[in-house]
Amino acid sequence: MKTIKVGLVGFGTIGTGVAKLLLLQKERISKRTGCDVQLVRIADLDTTRDRGLKLPEGMLTADYHDILNDPEISIVVQLIGGTGVERTVMLEMINAGKNIVTANKALLATYGEEIFTAARAKGVSVAFEAAVGGGIPIIAAMGESLAANEIESIHAILNGTCNFILSNMEENGSDYAPTLKEAQRLGFAEANPAMDVEGSDTAQKLSILSHIAFGIHLDWKDIPKVGIETVSGIDFRYAKLLGYSIKLLAIANRVRGVAGSPDKLELSVCPTLVKKGSPIAAVSGAYNAVSVIGDAVETSFYYGKGAGEMPTASAVVADVMDTVVGRTKITFETLNLWNREKESGENVVLAKASEVKGRYYLRVVVEDRAGVISEVTAVLANAGISISSCVQDECDEASGVPLIIMTHETTEGAVLGAIEEMKQMACVKSEPVRMRIYG
Amino acid sequence: MKTIKVGLVGFGTIGTGVAKLLLLQKERISKRTGCDVQLVRIADLDTTRDRGLKLPEGMLTADYHDILNDPEISIVVQLIGGTGVERTVMLEMINAGKNIVTANKALLATYGEEIFTAARAKGVSVAFEAAVGGGIPIIAAMGESLAANEIESIHAILNGTCNFILSNMEENGSDYAPTLKEAQRLGFAEANPAMDVEGSDTAQKLSILSHIAFGIHLDWKDIPKVGIETVSGIDFRYAKLLGYSIKLLAIANRVRGVAGSPDKLELSVCPTLVKKGSPIAAVSGAYNAVSVIGDAVETSFYYGKGAGEMPTASAVVADVMDTVVGRTKITFETLNLWNREKESGENVVLAKASEVKGRYYLRVVVEDRAGVISEVTAVLANAGISISSCVQDECDEASGVPLIIMTHETTEGAVLGAIEEMKQMACVKSEPVRMRIYG
Repeated sequence: MKTIKVGLVGFGTIGTGVAKLLLLQKERISKRTGCDVQLVRIADLDTTRDRGLKLPEGMLTADYHDILNDPEISIVVQLIGGTGVERTVMLEMINAGKNIVTANKALLATYGEEIFTAARAKGVSVAFEAAVGGGIPIIAAMGESLAANEIESIHAILNGTCNFILSNMEENGSDYAPTLKEAQRLGFAEANPAMDVEGSDTAQKLSILSHIAFGIHLDWKDIPKVGIETVSGIDFRYAKLLGYSIKLLAIANRVRGVAGSPDKLELSVCPTLVKKGSPIAAVSGAYNAVSVIGDAVETSFYYGKGAGEMPTASAVVADVMDTVVGRTKITFETLNLWNREKESGENVVLAKASEVKGRYYLRVVVEDRAGVISEVTAVLANAGISISSCVQDECDEASGVPLIIMTHETTEGAVLGAIEEMKQMACVKSEPVRMRIYG
Repeated sequence: MKTIKVGLVGFGTIGTGVAKLLLLQKERISKRTGCDVQLVRIADLDTTRDRGLKLPEGMLTADYHDILNDPEISIVVQLIGGTGVERTVMLEMINAGKNIVTANKALLATYGEEIFTAARAKGVSVAFEAAVGGGIPIIAAMGESLAANEIESIHAILNGTCNFILSNMEENGSDYAPTLKEAQRLGFAEANPAMDVEGSDTAQKLSILSHIAFGIHLDWKDIPKVGIETVSGIDFRYAKLLGYSIKLLAIANRVRGVAGSPDKLELSVCPTLVKKGSPIAAVSGAYNAVSVIGDAVETSFYYGKGAGEMPTASAVVADVMDTVVGRTKITFETLNLWNREKESGENVVLAKASEVKGRYYLRVVVEDRAGVISEVTAVLANAGISISSCVQDECDEASGVPLIIMTHETTEGAVLGAIEEMKQMACVKSEPVRMRIYG
């Protein structure tokens, strides 16, 4: 039986889960790979904290060079987050000829091209199933199982923190601020929740999925995003009334080119009204889900734990096993990701706001006086936006009364233009809140 | 660019979808495999029917030997259903050194061992993503993406015909017979629907999934099954009242061995009350879905079109592409399925009915007279079965009145014993209907 030696950089929550599987389920993994897969070294700056797992003497080191410089280690599981020193470590490991398994979406979303180019030059592979959707095998689905398809769209819940907060707001009729505080208390949101609640984490994951599905090259920061801090209890009340739930969706939508011009891609991260009864509307709590439409497979849907020690470790160790048996090498070479010279994708480009079609939900807090509805809706009419329903809420706040508007299909550009115009109006008391409508 | 020649046996619905993808999306497939994948021959007894696809001159033949004897064809897509001549064709193709891609679940469920042994001997691979769940990549998930897990359970909707009928009964409050007739009229059920509605098709698919997930060797006919023809409108009425939907579920449940004895496996196909709000309860119409619990990944859920021309072709062509690039060969060798000598699985065995635990729903049609409830429930009490709710329906039929009973957790053996006893009672007017309760 061939021996494969594995090193692990980053001994946090997921790292601990990976170590548990590789050490405690060694027999299972050997049986299923036909190889003796040995975790031989773990590097983490914190070598003293108790992770609830007894390691063999000398396995844990504070210096990742102990892994880098061990020529017998052929696979490195890179689980430190961030894009600073993590980038250096990743490139050093690649240049030392290590095959990489990682869960670091920020690093791939930011430096994918540099990392993949280095790996190709060195003849090693990079696997990253755990970078998007935790235990959901969405990278394998997108890159392999759906390979016969042209992908039409992706609608996904990719951030468990946001989904936990929104689900709780919906269930308890509560507002954003106290729900975030509760999520922090329960460990579902970080002390500084900005990356999650502002949609950056979701945008990074969406940029990775979109690169695989559509071959698009872009900086994840170019994906338009709206965070969940704009969502209020009032929105859930109206959404419910109209048969919708509210989710922070990552959206990728193919915009067909007209008259022979190439297809473009709508990408956005935005709180979205999702029709109840659809599978994605039923996703509550810290779960993730991805709904993909392909031209052959039609709708397919994937759901599971998007984070957490063991679910994410499940994806990481599957990648280790794939790397051991040689599947990763093939996938890495055929998918040929982040390679501008020789793409396997399609190189679509981002659609402009004026090319993005959809229905929108608007909440505009207005002055409580005669004529206001007429003034606000006139802005929409002038922008060519047709209204499907409009309610002025009774709730009596000092700041004004909320006007809830659902539009018929229009363009993102028209809606953004109308919002800009409303912001200039004296009767509009705060920045209008917009959401997408899906389903 | 390397050329790979593909032959297709069976030019029915799915075969047409496969031919469409291989011929019309040739560029897409070449780009993503790095090979020139050429469909060169299609064999079908019917060479005249219009399938809505123009084939190059001479591609279609009535004689599969034209594929068998072409040494340049290295991949054969085998899409004829059944287990008679299909078995011969499959073995001949394997012995001629062809790599196989198939959607024939009956053949694998019945002759898996013979086929896989022949393929191993010849050094070729057999891929069968399309055999279970149509366009849902559940074979890849089970065999690759969840490979780090010990699977705890599978709960799946694997037959679109049954799910279509049950969904329609639920929606329209209709009974089984007229709904089946309507499904046949719409093309969702075959003229002879036995394989579908009696659960055989589901049992075949479950036996394949269970072999991958648990390494169990069994004849699919040994899986206990109850068909959907026993489900009536009354059942849906009560299920709804109690917050459940009714689905024909394929169930595989690991029964933990006590005191060091090996684990066993509960397998069954049975109409099941599924708690509303769970993803699987939301699966309606001709869709399929699989919910898998693994010890690391926890709950994961897959959903999509379980049949139909293009969704199934999506899975078939993904298998062709995996075979072209070499992933299938690796998976075939490492999974090592249907190999009694050297298993990668665990070789669990089927649990006895007395070892299978669960909650049950019973509908017993009884005589409308004093004392009947007491007599029937006494049978359950004597079997040690505790009742969680019991309703005698008001509906006044000549045949008797239905008594609806939900049990607390008990064993399948106890329930089957109680049903046998009830069948002997004069006050029980027809065979009691039993369903599982899930969630």
